[in-house]
Amino acid sequence: MSTQPKLELVRDAFIPAAATQTARVAILGFGTVGRSVAEILSYSPDPRLQLTHVFNRDIERRRVTWVSDDVRWTDDIDAVLNSDVDIIVETLGGLQPAEEWVRKALLRGKSVITANKQLIAHRGRELAQLAFHAGEQLLYGASVAGGVPVLLALQEGLAGDRLIGVSGILNGTCNYILSRMEAANVSFADALQEAQNFGFAEADPSSDLNGDDAAAKLAILAQIGLKAYLSPSQTRKTPVSSVEAIDFAYAREIGCTIRQVSRATLDRKKVFAAVEPALVPLTSSLAQVHGSQNVVVASGKYGGNTAFSGHGAGGHPTAVAVISDLIAAAQGRSHADWIAHNDPKGYKVSSDFTTPHYVRFVVKDRPGIIATIAAALSEGGINIDAILQKSGFPKAELPFVVTLEPCGSSVLQEALTNLASSDFLVQPPVHFPILR
Amino acid sequence: MSTQPKLELVRDAFIPAAATQTARVAILGFGTVGRSVAEILSYSPDPRLQLTHVFNRDIERRRVTWVSDDVRWTDDIDAVLNSDVDIIVETLGGLQPAEEWVRKALLRGKSVITANKQLIAHRGRELAQLAFHAGEQLLYGASVAGGVPVLLALQEGLAGDRLIGVSGILNGTCNYILSRMEAANVSFADALQEAQNFGFAEADPSSDLNGDDAAAKLAILAQIGLKAYLSPSQTRKTPVSSVEAIDFAYAREIGCTIRQVSRATLDRKKVFAAVEPALVPLTSSLAQVHGSQNVVVASGKYGGNTAFSGHGAGGHPTAVAVISDLIAAAQGRSHADWIAHNDPKGYKVSSDFTTPHYVRFVVKDRPGIIATIAAALSEGGINIDAILQKSGFPKAELPFVVTLEPCGSSVLQEALTNLASSDFLVQPPVHFPILR
Repeated sequence: MSTQPKLELVRDAFIPAAATQTARVAILGFGTVGRSVAEILSYSPDPRLQLTHVFNRDIERRRVTWVSDDVRWTDDIDAVLNSDVDIIVETLGGLQPAEEWVRKALLRGKSVITANKQLIAHRGRELAQLAFHAGEQLLYGASVAGGVPVLLALQEGLAGDRLIGVSGILNGTCNYILSRMEAANVSFADALQEAQNFGFAEADPSSDLNGDDAAAKLAILAQIGLKAYLSPSQTRKTPVSSVEAIDFAYAREIGCTIRQVSRATLDRKKVFAAVEPALVPLTSSLAQVHGSQNVVVASGKYGGNTAFSGHGAGGHPTAVAVISDLIAAAQGRSHADWIAHNDPKGYKVSSDFTTPHYVRFVVKDRPGIIATIAAALSEGGINIDAILQKSGFPKAELPFVVTLEPCGSSVLQEALTNLASSDFLVQPPVHFPILR
Repeated sequence: MSTQPKLELVRDAFIPAAATQTARVAILGFGTVGRSVAEILSYSPDPRLQLTHVFNRDIERRRVTWVSDDVRWTDDIDAVLNSDVDIIVETLGGLQPAEEWVRKALLRGKSVITANKQLIAHRGRELAQLAFHAGEQLLYGASVAGGVPVLLALQEGLAGDRLIGVSGILNGTCNYILSRMEAANVSFADALQEAQNFGFAEADPSSDLNGDDAAAKLAILAQIGLKAYLSPSQTRKTPVSSVEAIDFAYAREIGCTIRQVSRATLDRKKVFAAVEPALVPLTSSLAQVHGSQNVVVASGKYGGNTAFSGHGAGGHPTAVAVISDLIAAAQGRSHADWIAHNDPKGYKVSSDFTTPHYVRFVVKDRPGIIATIAAALSEGGINIDAILQKSGFPKAELPFVVTLEPCGSSVLQEALTNLASSDFLVQPPVHFPILR
């Protein structure tokens, strides 16, 4: 075992970068991320960090030979929580038992680095306050956008601005599927199958596809960037499975492609937030993100738009974020202090963005359909911009698209509800915002 | 005058974010950036920061009414250096007198925030060491890429990676000119004139166009990201004026456009560095940067490529970077400690990148030219990839392009030198790397 002295992480005690002390590190969870953290600590060792414990269930099957013999492998969480480790890396995911163990760790004088977006989105504020009062660090740079250091940028690098919006592509699985549908003109189901075959989608991809994963990350971005509390459950989430191959063809006609876009903006003491498929210009930074990449765009009153992009998932990129946080914690730099003093405000949350819209109808063709749709939209005060119709589809199941001038999404929803019982509709209309 | 207590910025004394102390701030230079810093401090006040002094020559002509009456306006630098200000913001630019005044400020117990890329590129290491030993902060986030917080990202956000390369578009004037030439098919001279009319280029744009400006920023990125000392004078700089409108047409034929690319990579204890026009794929993040925007791409062993883009110049974006640094300094966070303990190494510097190349010849046409060129290249061991020739040019002054498989730029230069006396050349051949 190491003979390194225990590093005392006492609040307000600034530990200079030159400190020769080494922080003792435990990893909870030896899946993709936990294993990658261990790899970097083993193959690119940092004198400030020493791996001392690895916790996982069924640990003997996980044990690898390339870590130091001094590392203790255990499936007993108390053996870690009661040890002399200084910093715990939590890569378990999910709310429980992660939350309980993180609380215990903080109360027992350990700092915590986590990659757990659900934990931070739902319990981040309480855990940050607990960490602050315990005099420990809580860092979670890996919880959003993997290896892209966007939380640090929002919190410190753009601290001099007044941020009014954050948006981005936060889910690599959805982006892989949509960019494959765009490039190869395949169906949603085929693109999903391909993503699963290549390991870009999990066996159960529901939390990726329904927007839950991105909504958790958006909540963290809003808390840090906009200093606004945003519950993932308050955020409108439209599943990406509503996108069909034909939508890419129509989108291209107006110079756009389709991405799962997560966005939150502050406007007069209200937070507008949504996670949904959206049309974005082919030339935009959102359209240029392919495969499993992520991007976050911060919009500031003074600095305009600043974009951060890179690998949003994967073992090594996420491990880079974890190790950057480990170095920060070993040096006594903390997000916990920050969040404790920038308590996110509880603004009213709305999903009622005003934007141009794209609406796809699939109809059994007969005269008068456009007139009926136009009347319903007009009744809602909504102006039609263009009607797009590609040839080569059967009259019994004819898709066409109506693009609309800017209107609130709730007004559009109401107009479409009024059309819902129309006999010509083969399926309910699908609508996406157009983000120029 | 303020009755705020003087903030003591003593090294190793961690000042929590909750500190109610207010740092007293002086601005040196009331040009675009200095004025924008004053604007944000006045219109979006931060309780941690109080503007107390503005220094400029001929100060009475600069004085504005929208700052607090408590601010002292002066053209006497000693009135600032001998005052009780805590932090000095240096926006003067150039090496002298900025260097002398920054040294004096640090020695008199003031922290310094600077936007001065030449100062940091040439004197950053010594000034950081001085700051460290004086127990003061020296921060310079505004010196590279304006409002894009890339230095912080390289230093802390990607601290867990091993960076092996940094590249980017670091000069907004060049990027404005090249992206206008691309979009509007205008000549270099016309695009430059337009940039000057719109305020995107200075009356004397030579340090932008010849690469000096970008080379200074690249040197700072290499010091922070690669921990490699790189003198701007050791970096190969090819002026962007060598690009002609016809080059965009040929570049498009191979799916590329042209950008002024600054890049530095670490390879076996050598730093490769250059600032030059280069062909980049139309789909790359470098090609997607238009107008006066900047982008920096960091390449890591573990995290792959991470990109940062936004407004690389302009008063307000640069002021955001300055104020983010002011907040960091008021909280006791420092780059000086970092650089003092990550002393950039003095690797051997080379510009001899191995890449595919684009070579434009302008010739007086006659039989045998291709044979002569091919022989000269072959003698240098260089393989031709393709020969591109657009129609519609006079035989007496015929431009055509040869693309080459990867070769060292020095080998290419030598082969072209051997061709220099050929009678068919109307002008010396122009060559750019192709960055895939």
